[in-house]
Amino acid sequence: MAVKAVRQRLDPARRSELILEKALELFAETHYSIVTVRDIARHCGINVGLIYHYFDNKEHLFRSALAHAIGQLVADYERRRREASDPFAGIAAWLDTHAAVAPTTITRMVKIMADYAALGARDSETDAIVAGFYRREQDLLEETLRRGIAAGVFRAVDVEKTARVIGRQLDGIFHASASRGEDRIAQDIEELREFIGYVLRGPGESPGRG
Amino acid sequence: MAVKAVRQRLDPARRSELILEKALELFAETHYSIVTVRDIARHCGINVGLIYHYFDNKEHLFRSALAHAIGQLVADYERRRREASDPFAGIAAWLDTHAAVAPTTITRMVKIMADYAALGARDSETDAIVAGFYRREQDLLEETLRRGIAAGVFRAVDVEKTARVIGRQLDGIFHASASRGEDRIAQDIEELREFIGYVLRGPGESPGRG
Repeated sequence: MAVKAVRQRLDPARRSELILEKALELFAETHYSIVTVRDIARHCGINVGLIYHYFDNKEHLFRSALAHAIGQLVADYERRRREASDPFAGIAAWLDTHAAVAPTTITRMVKIMADYAALGARDSETDAIVAGFYRREQDLLEETLRRGIAAGVFRAVDVEKTARVIGRQLDGIFHASASRGEDRIAQDIEELREFIGYVLRGPGESPGRG
Repeated sequence: MAVKAVRQRLDPARRSELILEKALELFAETHYSIVTVRDIARHCGINVGLIYHYFDNKEHLFRSALAHAIGQLVADYERRRREASDPFAGIAAWLDTHAAVAPTTITRMVKIMADYAALGARDSETDAIVAGFYRREQDLLEETLRRGIAAGVFRAVDVEKTARVIGRQLDGIFHASASRGEDRIAQDIEELREFIGYVLRGPGESPGRG
């Protein structure tokens, strides 16, 4: 499917998007250092020159693929957030984004972030993209928690720590889902939502028994 | 240091342990499919033949490195667990193990588990090692939670879900610590301990304000 789509006459924006999605897939499946631009071109069914028309080099393609995945996540969240009627729905919007925006995309995104970090070969532009993603997550969670506490609908929890707990829980769900070998992402996000309700609203919203 | 140690006359158990530790380090830094047995031998300062004396092939070395890391974790936990005076200390023992047993080992262990899972080339023996690790974690957390509830020191939370939340939180801490680019593992584990106290014992053990 993707092969055909990229080879066809496409507007440049759509074509570069398809290249980025294929690059993300290949980088995530094995490792940044193994995948060549030529491999990506082959999997897209296009000439390698066409990739260089859009991207300077492999580094550029890598960080563009990362930024593209983050962009999808953020766009989905912004749309959901506008529809959120209260602070709890605001937090739920971030969880819903994770459940909805192709878990595949997020799983791949965290995988290439982890590979990049383990490699220890820092690139300041890539670092800025990753740091920006985590900063944005922490900020949006903190901001929503503060709003809920001010409105009296959340308990007066420590905002920074609680936001970190939520962020790490999402990290745990996505980073480890493949290792755990169970297809539990949707259930895990549901349990996290339930758990946050319990923490922010008290035992009335208990994780319950079964 | 390690190079010298492996080259010296060592008893076989200690030598194979040093090989496994170097293998874990190299596999985690880049990727299973890039690292050769020859690379590992070179980093150990020994002849490749000596590695084949201990391990059949790269697959065998890989899963032995994984099993060795898990073994270190479990041995440390068992020792701490025996000293735990109550169910909360029992859960804390698992967290303390994560904080103490070289965060480096655990970070590397989860990294190679993630790489292996993403690769999609399943090997039943490796699958069994990974599944066994996660099963053991879930079981030990569930068992301790049940004991605490029965003793009336924990709230009657849902045991399975709460154990999963704790496990995923540890996954999040270790899998994402490198991506987050902050050296926060010790603090994160402290915050998790505080958080579990809050969930199991109620707002008296609140995550507090600051």
